[in-house]
Amino acid sequence: MKLAKVSGTITATRKEGIPNGLRILVVSYLDEELRETGNTGACVDTVNAGSGDVVLLCSSSSARMTELTRGAASDNTIIGIVDSISTGRDMIYSKNQAEQQKK
Amino acid sequence: MKLAKVSGTITATRKEGIPNGLRILVVSYLDEELRETGNTGACVDTVNAGSGDVVLLCSSSSARMTELTRGAASDNTIIGIVDSISTGRDMIYSKNQAEQQKK
Amino acid sequence: MKLAKVSGTITATRKEGIPNGLRILVVSYLDEELRETGNTGACVDTVNAGSGDVVLLCSSSSARMTELTRGAASDNTIIGIVDSISTGRDMIYSKNQAEQQKK
Amino acid sequence: MKLAKVSGTITATRKEGIPNGLRILVVSYLDEELRETGNTGACVDTVNAGSGDVVLLCSSSSARMTELTRGAASDNTIIGIVDSISTGRDMIYSKNQAEQQKK
Amino acid sequence: MKLAKVSGTITATRKEGIPNGLRILVVSYLDEELRETGNTGACVDTVNAGSGDVVLLCSSSSARMTELTRGAASDNTIIGIVDSISTGRDMIYSKNQAEQQKK
Repeated sequence: MKLAKVSGTITATRKEGIPNGLRILVVSYLDEELRETGNTGACVDTVNAGSGDVVLLCSSSSARMTELTRGAASDNTIIGIVDSISTGRDMIYSKNQAEQQKK
Repeated sequence: MKLAKVSGTITATRKEGIPNGLRILVVSYLDEELRETGNTGACVDTVNAGSGDVVLLCSSSSARMTELTRGAASDNTIIGIVDSISTGRDMIYSKNQAEQQKK
Repeated sequence: MKLAKVSGTITATRKEGIPNGLRILVVSYLDEELRETGNTGACVDTVNAGSGDVVLLCSSSSARMTELTRGAASDNTIIGIVDSISTGRDMIYSKNQAEQQKK
Repeated sequence: MKLAKVSGTITATRKEGIPNGLRILVVSYLDEELRETGNTGACVDTVNAGSGDVVLLCSSSSARMTELTRGAASDNTIIGIVDSISTGRDMIYSKNQAEQQKK
Repeated sequence: MKLAKVSGTITATRKEGIPNGLRILVVSYLDEELRETGNTGACVDTVNAGSGDVVLLCSSSSARMTELTRGAASDNTIIGIVDSISTGRDMIYSKNQAEQQKK
């Protein structure tokens, strides 16, 4: 899986293999210090991720291993919203703290 | 999925695994600001995309998850034509505006 | 799919998962102006491609979606010989012209 | 497969396709001399790997070929803890030695 | 498929999805002139490849399309030992010659 930050939303009236209810988002991939790498991708959202959320992305045929994407033409699915990441005893990311800093 | 711009058409009389009706296109991959990256690829079209359209590409086994590509030897399928992309409140791409600017 | 040029032939007496009749070729990947990128790969041929031919390569599980490679251990299959590539009204590659220039 | 070193742990309350019991870890990929490359990824752990362990990662649909990940939305699974790596007669990595040096 | 040179052996007592009999090797990927690229990977061996052998590697779900790896957690399998590679009339690699030069 990859870590990425949600950056935008795509609309596509004319599409194949993606059920109409599924949201298609733009994400920006993150490096190990959670900085944006400049690489971007499109994906299907299954967890109602919001703009700025750090998310877990699952690719290839495994991108279809959720209830919402089974049989869908998704090769990149957001399968989780990251609450926190810790390295040893240090917490290097906390969704709660990130949201409080924004306010 | 990846975002790309349709740039050309490929003809191949001698081919295996791609039904004759399917169009094979050349695309140029885009970065997060929708600039061409210089990376290119070939793909199968399922949505009748036109030259210059910004499209959604689906790869790996998921490239076969459309009615037209089921069982086909496609590892890269255009599954959508992008109407618009928005980041927060800003619309960073609109197919309508892009087409009006061309005229 | 990717565009590449056939550059060589591999022989491997000891092998698993590749039926004896299938040819294994070396290819050089091409960029959007059909120049060699310096990246190379090995692949299985299903269309009797010749040295110097511009070919279409299909990867991942889709590489097995031809009659000759069904069930084979190929993750990269030549599925087409490119006759021509056109961008808008310009033909940027023609197999016929390329072959006449060689003579 | 790839070689990587376990560097952190991810918590994600809201997730799809990953059973609750499975741990999600952050890894740092290694080069041939087992130095960290700076590239990072997230993965599912099936062998109870610990922080600092050198592990074997399996990707794509093969990431689901363990008892714990069958049917799971994992495209990257830790399938082994490396005990040692030898090149010819030289042992270039030994988990035992690495752990003794830490003490 | 990719061309690589066998460089080492991995032992991993604790592992999932890889049957005990299968050897796990380290390989170094080669460029078109068969020089090592500096990129490395781990793989499962099905052809009893030896150190220094130039081998064919098959990835993704196709890595499981051999008798020994069917159902195994391998995303990268050595499926052949390269005897020779020829470009047009020139033989650019011969296993026999490579072995005689070593002696």
